Amino acid sequence: MNHEDSFAVTERNRLRRLHERGAYDRKTVFEILDAGIMCHVAYVLEGQPFCTPTIYWRQEDVLYWHGSSASRMLRHLKAGSPACLTVSHLDALVLARSGFNHSANYRSAMCFGTARLIEDEAEKAAALIAVVDRFYPDRAATLRPVSAQESKATTVIKMTIEDASAKIAGGNVEDEPEDYAHQVWAGIIPVRTVLEGEVPCPRLASEITRPATLDAYRDGRTLDDALAETHQRFKPEPA
Amino acid sequence: MNHEDSFAVTERNRLRRLHERGAYDRKTVFEILDAGIMCHVAYVLEGQPFCTPTIYWRQEDVLYWHGSSASRMLRHLKAGSPACLTVSHLDALVLARSGFNHSANYRSAMCFGTARLIEDEAEKAAALIAVVDRFYPDRAATLRPVSAQESKATTVIKMTIEDASAKIAGGNVEDEPEDYAHQVWAGIIPVRTVLEGEVPCPRLASEITRPATLDAYRDGRTLDDALAETHQRFKPEPA
Repeated sequence: MNHEDSFAVTERNRLRRLHERGAYDRKTVFEILDAGIMCHVAYVLEGQPFCTPTIYWRQEDVLYWHGSSASRMLRHLKAGSPACLTVSHLDALVLARSGFNHSANYRSAMCFGTARLIEDEAEKAAALIAVVDRFYPDRAATLRPVSAQESKATTVIKMTIEDASAKIAGGNVEDEPEDYAHQVWAGIIPVRTVLEGEVPCPRLASEITRPATLDAYRDGRTLDDALAETHQRFKPEPA
Repeated sequence: MNHEDSFAVTERNRLRRLHERGAYDRKTVFEILDAGIMCHVAYVLEGQPFCTPTIYWRQEDVLYWHGSSASRMLRHLKAGSPACLTVSHLDALVLARSGFNHSANYRSAMCFGTARLIEDEAEKAAALIAVVDRFYPDRAATLRPVSAQESKATTVIKMTIEDASAKIAGGNVEDEPEDYAHQVWAGIIPVRTVLEGEVPCPRLASEITRPATLDAYRDGRTLDDALAETHQRFKPEPA
């Protein structure tokens, strides 16, 4: 991977802690982003930070999410507002022989940029298709089309990633050399986020079966894997 | 539940969207908080928002987390810094008959307050025990004790919840009345975060077995349930 494939390291994304597990390259950052559906976005309103969970997706260096239609935020986003979008996957609880070395295994990506409303109608229409098709391949065309009223009621926000960092903590316990002799159970308890098999809408006509385009979400699979696969299959129109 | 059991509704925690699923009572907010181990904290540094994933826990109205020892943040937290700590649990993907009604089922709690460093040594020592015992009942006393150097290298932050809100979205698809006849598969795909059975430290002596105090984390259980149970069992010294 050449130099252009890494985000620049700046004062805001430079990792201060656990730097040996950090990365700035697009491949690592994107793999974490593309394995998720729910992120947390930090933004500031009159000095007050907000941390909002939301569905998001990525196209190249651009992140998209649905905004609250709350007017307090809209006003700020029209002019562009600094934001930080973070995606985290918890992989294991880590139980060490000292309190200090207890931790969690996780993968996280933190992305910085300026969040803006999508105001262009064609761009917004494309985003309202992408928010479905990115997760559920080829599904948007099978739905009842978006109405003008729905488009108006929906706020879509985009943020070009200006810089980003990834942190990955994995593996088993790492204790201090002198602590391994301490007589206490130590190890990791892995955590998996798995799909459980669908529950059809109770009002679904009995002849309608789940389409093969949703096979990525098969029972027992991890959500990460399903999302990574559907992201691979997602080919949006170039912006 | 009487009035004192709800957080005040203010400009910053008042829910603007999906208010029918919102709540401000401690019981609802705390149930969401106590079923989690990883939160996201938003804070602001020189106008730039940061969204940081971290392990957290709750004692009464106070949230605790480990801070980065990054000096840029320390300086601000000494004086107290406005923060927003959010915990979210994803429960299902929701596939509707229109793009507009696609969503996710989730439970989230958003808590506002002023984050501060714990500088009192006794309070910090108690927190370094709590961060272990809250998750792993009675474990701290079985570990190699915290060293002075480790305590110095660890930053613990606390934030009294000044106001908070919860949002819960559950159930199956809700489509527009006229859309139920539209011929497309609709339903939900539940997501569960489950424990997978431990992986002992490769250097663990063969005679050391996992203690019964960790039984909450049994194989196949959801992480939420394990964390809710261990929080119930957690009885910290009153601060």
